[in-house]
Amino acid sequence: NKYQIAVIPGDGIGKEVMEATISVLDELDVDFDYIYGIAGDECNEEHGTPLPQETIDIVRDSDACLFGAAGETAADVIVKIRQEMKMFANLRPVKSYPNTKSLFENVDFMIVRENTEGLYIADQEEETEDGAIAKRVITREAEERIIDYAFQYAKDNNRTKVTAVHKANVLKKTDGLFKEIFYEVSEKYPDIDTEDFYVDATAMYLVTQPQEFQVVVTTNLFGDILSDEGAGLVGGLGLIPSANIGADGALFEPVHGSAPDIAGQQKANPIAMMLSAIMMLRYLGENDAADKFDAAILKVLSEGKTLTGDLGGSATTMEVAQAVKNAL
Amino acid sequence: NKYQIAVIPGDGIGKEVMEATISVLDELDVDFDYIYGIAGDECNEEHGTPLPQETIDIVRDSDACLFGAAGETAADVIVKIRQEMKMFANLRPVKSYPNTKSLFENVDFMIVRENTEGLYIADQEEETEDGAIAKRVITREAEERIIDYAFQYAKDNNRTKVTAVHKANVLKKTDGLFKEIFYEVSEKYPDIDTEDFYVDATAMYLVTQPQEFQVVVTTNLFGDILSDEGAGLVGGLGLIPSANIGADGALFEPVHGSAPDIAGQQKANPIAMMLSAIMMLRYLGENDAADKFDAAILKVLSEGKTLTGDLGGSATTMEVAQAVKNAL
Ligand SMILES: CC(C)[C@H](C(=O)O)[C@@H](O)C(=O)O
Ligand SMILES: CC(C)[C@H](C(=O)O)[C@@H](O)C(=O)O
Repeated sequence: NKYQIAVIPGDGIGKEVMEATISVLDELDVDFDYIYGIAGDECNEEHGTPLPQETIDIVRDSDACLFGAAGETAADVIVKIRQEMKMFANLRPVKSYPNTKSLFENVDFMIVRENTEGLYIADQEEETEDGAIAKRVITREAEERIIDYAFQYAKDNNRTKVTAVHKANVLKKTDGLFKEIFYEVSEKYPDIDTEDFYVDATAMYLVTQPQEFQVVVTTNLFGDILSDEGAGLVGGLGLIPSANIGADGALFEPVHGSAPDIAGQQKANPIAMMLSAIMMLRYLGENDAADKFDAAILKVLSEGKTLTGDLGGSATTMEVAQAVKNAL
Repeated sequence: NKYQIAVIPGDGIGKEVMEATISVLDELDVDFDYIYGIAGDECNEEHGTPLPQETIDIVRDSDACLFGAAGETAADVIVKIRQEMKMFANLRPVKSYPNTKSLFENVDFMIVRENTEGLYIADQEEETEDGAIAKRVITREAEERIIDYAFQYAKDNNRTKVTAVHKANVLKKTDGLFKEIFYEVSEKYPDIDTEDFYVDATAMYLVTQPQEFQVVVTTNLFGDILSDEGAGLVGGLGLIPSANIGADGALFEPVHGSAPDIAGQQKANPIAMMLSAIMMLRYLGENDAADKFDAAILKVLSEGKTLTGDLGGSATTMEVAQAVKNAL
C-alpha cells in the first residue's frame, strides 16, 4: 500500500516543521509518495494567487494532505480548501503533555468544529451604507453532520460525554437550531452523556475545569476561538495539531500559523505538525506507525532534553526531529 | 447630593448579592434613594414579561442602575436594557486578587466591549429553508464610538496601550472595517500604543500572557467570550463586575448569572456585585467612597478568612458583607 500524500509546506515556519515531520515519516514502515503543492503568501507573490487550481487538484487526487502554514493569505488558502473539498469536520485535540507550559495536568479533550459554514462563508459578507454585515449561516444539514460526527467520534474513542457549545440565549434561531439538533442526534447515542453550555461560560470552564471536557462540538468560529484557548491552556500552539476531514479528502495541519517572527531560524516547534501527521496516519488506518510515532514524541517530551524555545529549551527544529527519530 | 439608584435584583443569587451589596453601600457617606424594579424569570412568570415597561422607566429616570442577575430570560432583559438605553460601552475589568483561584498574579486589564450591535440585534436573525441566518451588524458609528471610548479610558486611567481584537482575516468587511476604524481613531491618541490581534490568538494570549494586556477593545460577542475567559483566569465569575455605560444612563452588574444551583442558600459570592457598585460610585464621581469600599474588599480577600465557597471558604453571602463593613 503506497499512499499519495499532498504536501503543502506553505509559508514561514510551515516549511521547517514540514521538513522535520517528513524526515520522521520517512523512518516509519509506511510507504508514501509525496506530491508537493504550493500555496500562501509567497505563492501569491510569485503566481498572483495564494491557492492555484493545481494545488487544489493535488489535494483532491491525494489520499491525504499535510499542510504547514500560510501567512497573511491563510484565510484564502485554508478556508477555501476546507470548503472546496467539503472537509466538514475540524478536529482539534487539546492534550496536556509533560515538560510543557501546560497550566493543568490530565487535560485530554477533542474539539469537533464545524468547518464549512457559520461566519466563514466569504460571499455572505457585504458593505452597507453605514458599515458592513456578515451572515452567520447555520444549516440543519451541516450541523447535523458535525454533531453526528462528534457522537460517533466519542463512541469510537471510548468517550462518555459530548458537550455542545452555542449561544442560543442570544442567537435564538441559529444556535437554537444547533442546540435542538444536538439533542435530536444524541438520541441515536443513548450511552453517551450530553451537556450544553453557552460559549462564554465554556470559555471560562476551559480555564477552571478543563479536565471535565471529553468531546466538544461547536460551530465554526466558536471552535476556532476555543481551540486556540485550549492551546494556551496546554502550553501554546506548538503542540496542537488538527485534522480537516471530509467525504472527499482530509487535510492535516498544525493549528499555529506561519510565525514570520521566527521563520527560517530553525526555532519552530515541529511537534504540532508531527502530531498532525500522526492524526493522518490514524486516518489512513496506519495505527501501528501512529502509535510508534506518538510514543517517540512522548518520550522526547518526557525526557525534556530536546525542546524548542517555546517549551523553554534551545533545540532547533531539526534537532527535535532527530531526537524523535532516535526515540522511534 | 442624593442619587436615585434603580435596583433590579432579578432572579436567583441576584437577590442575595444585591442585598449584601446594598448593606455595604448603606454604610458609606453617600446618600442614595433606591427605587426597586422587577425583571427576569420570576417577573416573567408573574407578569407575562421579563422586562416590564415600568422597569425600563425606572432605569431611565435613575442616576444609575444596579442589576443583579436574570435567569433563562437574561438575554431578553439585559440585552434589551442595553439597547433601549443606548448603553454602548460594556466595561469588564479582569483583575487578579489575593486568596482567589487566580491562575496568575498581576493581571489587571479592562475589556471594553461594544454593547449594542454585532450579533446581538434580535430582529436580525431569521429562519431559512435549510436552517437559519443571523446577521452580524457592524456600523462605523457604533464602532468608532466604542474605540474612542477605549482610548479615552486608557488616557484617563494612565494606561499606555490599547489592543483591538477582531477576526479581519475571515470577516474581511465587518472586522476589516473595525480594524480600519481602530487605527483611524488611534491617531487622535498619539501617546497610546496600539496593537491588534485575531480573536483566536487573543483567546490563547489571555492564558499565556495575560499581564501584557491593558485595555482591550472589541465587538459585542467577542467581548462576551473573552471576558468570561478572563473571569476564569482570575478565579471565576464571583469576582468580575461590569459597567454598561451610555449617554442616557448606566447599569452596573456582575458578569455572573443567576446560578439557580446555589440560589437561596447564601452561598453566592457578593464581591462581583460589590465591585460593580464600586464602578457605579466612580461613575457618579464618588471616588472617596469607591476607594474606601475597594480597600475594604481587598482587606477581606487578603485576610482570606471570610470567603465564600467558590474561593475555597465557607462564609455566607451576608458574612462576607459583614466582613467588608467591618473593614471599611
Ligand atoms: C487562518 C484562519 C482563517 C483559520 C481559521 O480561522 O479557521 C485559523 O485560525 C485556524 O484556526 O485554522
Ligand atoms: C445573558 C447574556 C445575554 C449576556 C450577554 O451575552 O451579553 C451575558 O453573557 C453577559 O455577558 O452579560
